[in-house]
Amino acid sequence: MSNNRIVSGMRPTGKLHLGHYHGVLSNWMELQRNFECFFFAADWHSLTTEYASTDGIQDSITEMVLDWLAFGIDPEQSVIFKQSRVPQHAELNLILSMITPVSWLERNPTYKEMQENLTTKDLSTFGFLGYPVLMASDIIVYKAARVPVGQDQIPHLEITREIARRFNYLYGEVFPEPAALLTETPKVLGIDGRKMSKSYGNAIFLSDDAEETRKKVMSMVTDTLRPFKRDPGEPDRCVAFTLHSLYVDADKRAEIVEGCRSAQLGCVDCKKILAQAMVDTLAPFREKRVELAAKPGLVDEVLAEGSRKAEVVARQTMDEARAALKV
Amino acid sequence: MSNNRIVSGMRPTGKLHLGHYHGVLSNWMELQRNFECFFFAADWHSLTTEYASTDGIQDSITEMVLDWLAFGIDPEQSVIFKQSRVPQHAELNLILSMITPVSWLERNPTYKEMQENLTTKDLSTFGFLGYPVLMASDIIVYKAARVPVGQDQIPHLEITREIARRFNYLYGEVFPEPAALLTETPKVLGIDGRKMSKSYGNAIFLSDDAEETRKKVMSMVTDTLRPFKRDPGEPDRCVAFTLHSLYVDADKRAEIVEGCRSAQLGCVDCKKILAQAMVDTLAPFREKRVELAAKPGLVDEVLAEGSRKAEVVARQTMDEARAALKV
Ligand code: SF4
Ligand code: SF4
Repeated sequence: MSNNRIVSGMRPTGKLHLGHYHGVLSNWMELQRNFECFFFAADWHSLTTEYASTDGIQDSITEMVLDWLAFGIDPEQSVIFKQSRVPQHAELNLILSMITPVSWLERNPTYKEMQENLTTKDLSTFGFLGYPVLMASDIIVYKAARVPVGQDQIPHLEITREIARRFNYLYGEVFPEPAALLTETPKVLGIDGRKMSKSYGNAIFLSDDAEETRKKVMSMVTDTLRPFKRDPGEPDRCVAFTLHSLYVDADKRAEIVEGCRSAQLGCVDCKKILAQAMVDTLAPFREKRVELAAKPGLVDEVLAEGSRKAEVVARQTMDEARAALKV
Repeated sequence: MSNNRIVSGMRPTGKLHLGHYHGVLSNWMELQRNFECFFFAADWHSLTTEYASTDGIQDSITEMVLDWLAFGIDPEQSVIFKQSRVPQHAELNLILSMITPVSWLERNPTYKEMQENLTTKDLSTFGFLGYPVLMASDIIVYKAARVPVGQDQIPHLEITREIARRFNYLYGEVFPEPAALLTETPKVLGIDGRKMSKSYGNAIFLSDDAEETRKKVMSMVTDTLRPFKRDPGEPDRCVAFTLHSLYVDADKRAEIVEGCRSAQLGCVDCKKILAQAMVDTLAPFREKRVELAAKPGLVDEVLAEGSRKAEVVARQTMDEARAALKV
């Protein structure tokens, strides 16, 4: 039953930013080299919280998948698809809902937390409560051996494993319990020093051009205890410097630390170094993105083709699940 | 948006009995003459309560559909299908789950009632809670104009209407709100005087032969205040007599009332009259059933063909629903 399969989805929220890049995409690129990967646009999941305003979902998917493709997710190597186009996700979701106790869902830590935090939205829906059941379906319908997760998603994956186990216990061994593939993700800060997020308006997007990138980098918060260039600074207190470690090589960084602490290097110059390194690193991807974005219908084609491939696998699993269930 | 469509499902519980016949099937036969009918074996619904023991579901479906066919439900006139074979039920269920408040489901009177009554089963599952969402999907995925319901199912249909309304409000007019087609159903009593039910072991099945029928009728409870034939009886207190009104014509019944009250007619003779009338009425159906049961694969073919027809309609609705949802 063991395989080499990985499943991972991303909610379409539009253009991706550096947080997605270092947090997810760079991981996916690594995984793509070593596993049989299924990457999907999780549009059903968007509905769990965005059901009241679905206008932007299509465009969000297009922008997001353009980023995937430009940054190296390759439809020749990985199955790239749209969740809502593979009906087996919904079918397995329905089956798994029959065997999942409501209490497992209510004790899901994210559930109450999100309900409390997203006070502008009514999240008391049946679908929102059932989010972990849908997530379980997304994963086990491909019999994934592993799922890349951050530390905070471990409880979700545990519910997936419990649901798979319960199905196997009731109807016979069909679903492998997916193992967590714990991924290290640097916390990427936005220009204001908070976690980078589209909704905070502090994000540098993968699709930003060189000009925009420079402007955003130059407006980044630095060491707030260094009001003037003549004052010594401390990179450990500097928001901009968190990005230096991702784009500037170690030797150069050592120089910067030295120059900052000795008040030899000013923040403007220091951020120019960062901006240049960032623009240089991202340039080839961004060019690729512009190129891909110019091909009308490309993303739709990729998703249609990937969804067909995904469905072949999902249908096979569902046939086994139905046989076990005897329906 | 108005149409002539009716949707009605039956949970597969095996062979049907007289309660199903007079309560549902005879209604369906009437509906079939006047409407475009979609009749389905509700196997997903079986899972809401029977998920722990699914062994018998397939055979139950076969027996049930044989009864449908024998008693006049005609695949040339009506679409006869299996719920789990039309994936759009599951897809629409997932979409509707996103917009259905948990509170609508918790306040569903059947929910708490069944949880309290069926104490031998663990009904605290997500799927059981979501039963009305699935029911809504079953109905509106065919844009049914009307749904035949008994008085007790009115609250369920009201949730369906509320969910349809909410979808239309959020995304635009896609689903007509199905109207209740209130059906009068005689309460059919079993041989022990309780409501006829397979689980009570008091049922006369449509597939019983003449011999079995006679035996069961002869063992029916009569007027318990009439210990001997010489005592006058009262048909209004007699369990057997509830069936006379379904099988024995009015003139003959008047005679029986007279004979019972005047102690001229004994219960054995009276029930022989009933048994004979019942056997005569049901004979042609039962012969037909034996004939159909002898054709291997017949039910599977009917359901496969019907499911294909149902899917054509359901797919069309789902395309409209997706367009409105913009996913
Ligand atoms: S010199 Fe560079 S590292 Fe030091 S505070 Fe300014 S931006 Fe940050
Ligand atoms: S005579 Fe007929 S109606 Fe009267 S109590 Fe007996 S069975 Fe019932």
